[in-house]
Amino acid sequence: MSHIKYKILNQVKPDFQAIETALKENLGVHLDLVSEVAGHILFSGGKRLRPLLMCLSARICGYSGGREAFFSTIFEYLHAATLLHDDLVDGGRLRRGKPAAHFVYGNEIAVLTGDFLLARSLSIASETQNTEVIRVIAGITENMAQGEIHQLTQKENLKLKEQEYMEIIRRKTAVLIEGACKTGALISKSGDSAVNALAEYGFNLGMAFQMADDLLDYISDTKSLGKAVGADLREGKLTLPVIHALESASEQDRILMEKIILNKDFSEYEFNMLKNMLNKYKGIEYTKNKAKEHTICAKQMLSIFKDSAAKETLIDIADYALARKS
Amino acid sequence: MSHIKYKILNQVKPDFQAIETALKENLGVHLDLVSEVAGHILFSGGKRLRPLLMCLSARICGYSGGREAFFSTIFEYLHAATLLHDDLVDGGRLRRGKPAAHFVYGNEIAVLTGDFLLARSLSIASETQNTEVIRVIAGITENMAQGEIHQLTQKENLKLKEQEYMEIIRRKTAVLIEGACKTGALISKSGDSAVNALAEYGFNLGMAFQMADDLLDYISDTKSLGKAVGADLREGKLTLPVIHALESASEQDRILMEKIILNKDFSEYEFNMLKNMLNKYKGIEYTKNKAKEHTICAKQMLSIFKDSAAKETLIDIADYALARKS
Repeated sequence: MSHIKYKILNQVKPDFQAIETALKENLGVHLDLVSEVAGHILFSGGKRLRPLLMCLSARICGYSGGREAFFSTIFEYLHAATLLHDDLVDGGRLRRGKPAAHFVYGNEIAVLTGDFLLARSLSIASETQNTEVIRVIAGITENMAQGEIHQLTQKENLKLKEQEYMEIIRRKTAVLIEGACKTGALISKSGDSAVNALAEYGFNLGMAFQMADDLLDYISDTKSLGKAVGADLREGKLTLPVIHALESASEQDRILMEKIILNKDFSEYEFNMLKNMLNKYKGIEYTKNKAKEHTICAKQMLSIFKDSAAKETLIDIADYALARKS
Repeated sequence: MSHIKYKILNQVKPDFQAIETALKENLGVHLDLVSEVAGHILFSGGKRLRPLLMCLSARICGYSGGREAFFSTIFEYLHAATLLHDDLVDGGRLRRGKPAAHFVYGNEIAVLTGDFLLARSLSIASETQNTEVIRVIAGITENMAQGEIHQLTQKENLKLKEQEYMEIIRRKTAVLIEGACKTGALISKSGDSAVNALAEYGFNLGMAFQMADDLLDYISDTKSLGKAVGADLREGKLTLPVIHALESASEQDRILMEKIILNKDFSEYEFNMLKNMLNKYKGIEYTKNKAKEHTICAKQMLSIFKDSAAKETLIDIADYALARKS
């Protein structure tokens, strides 16, 4: 385990445990099957990044209401709901190293359990008694659904532009992380400057995280990833490493890359050839740099807060966004 | 058209038109495809029962804030979201006389557009600035998802009891109509007695509506229904007419009925034979009576309100629940 990961895990241990407990206690399910399916996705080793970010954001704002772990479950339930629906949409077979829920329980149950988790997150949001929080949560869900649909309509579009990619990942990933951080500030009854700073921190962190995630599909391996590498490409999803390389490639290389991309049954040899192209045309490097810019922006947003353990951890998480291997 | 239907349509005309306008104006979509799919389900001749009930409930409480049509879209978006997901879950091919959205656009788009509509309804709920309304909406969604899953797990269960059937239809249908009526009272800032009375009215109306709906599968025809008759049975869904007849039938007849039910490819001849059994063992009559009891309860709940046009229409709608043919 890398030093930074170890340091973060150590810093967030009490929050992490409080979140695990809250997730189990507040599922509020009345049917065994829902409990099982929700548990399948919820308790399979998630990082709890989103609830942790909400708790840390609350703490950096001086929150002391004692309900942060409870409220933070909003973001894990919401995240789990979208994973259930997205895996079904993408046809993904593995999730966190386990068979995806729709393969184990069927599409019907996966759809309905996703709906339930979405509703559960909203019920908990309503308990904040803060209509701005609820507005944020509803807005996240609207954006995520539209981001996923947008991505779906752009499948196999070899002409996808960087700007459109950015808009897709903003909606499908960054708004949720932005919302988690913003909610931490909102429940602390912080002023606009703190709310906006944490929202911006979350947005930039979310963009960096998704780019890092998209990179992993080309630089990691199936075992550490817990899902198949090359999956994005097999699903016809063009991400920044590929978009940039396609834009920069010679005509001959571009045609070769397009052939591999459109043939979703590519061999390992072909996939490696494509990866070489991503390096040759600096698709990997460019994406790393873009992600890095966002982590720098994220950290800058924290400058208005005085030093604290929570601030240090939020900075570490931004650095870790780029360093992670899975 | 029956006299009562004509009378209701005439009474609610201004509300109906305001709701249609609000549904178009507040979809708040940024992608053409989402707009098209949402429109496919939203603008295919729905009765707008749920938003109408919310508007009438607000009016019976003396609401004059002028935002009832806007807020009432919550309940049509929510309803449309569940139709999209349920049709997918049930594999239903027809909806309101048109091919179901998942057949036209695929499961992926149907799931995600459902998510979007769900989120949209919550965004509008958050604009009420009323956390009790939001709690109600989130609770509806939780209940509906669990009700659908409950029904799914009871498929082809020939031993399904009336009580369990009642619990399933409460969750999958009645809570939404209850919530629409309750929200009408809540946005009017009415006291507990009005809020509870309208919630109870909605609950009982919802129960009666679902029972009437389940009856239509045996007493209507595909053309007036806009979807295939006998569909419930083909999906393995046992509803009250069947549950009651199975409980009352002689052993010989019960075995015959069970054979038809478990053979989902039943012929028209077999389906008619089953319908004869439902009549012979009073499954139809019993269900009609149960539904009628609920409409009586619903109407009684309105006694605390003074006479008004809205009250008269709410009473008419309760009567119509039983009289409708589609």
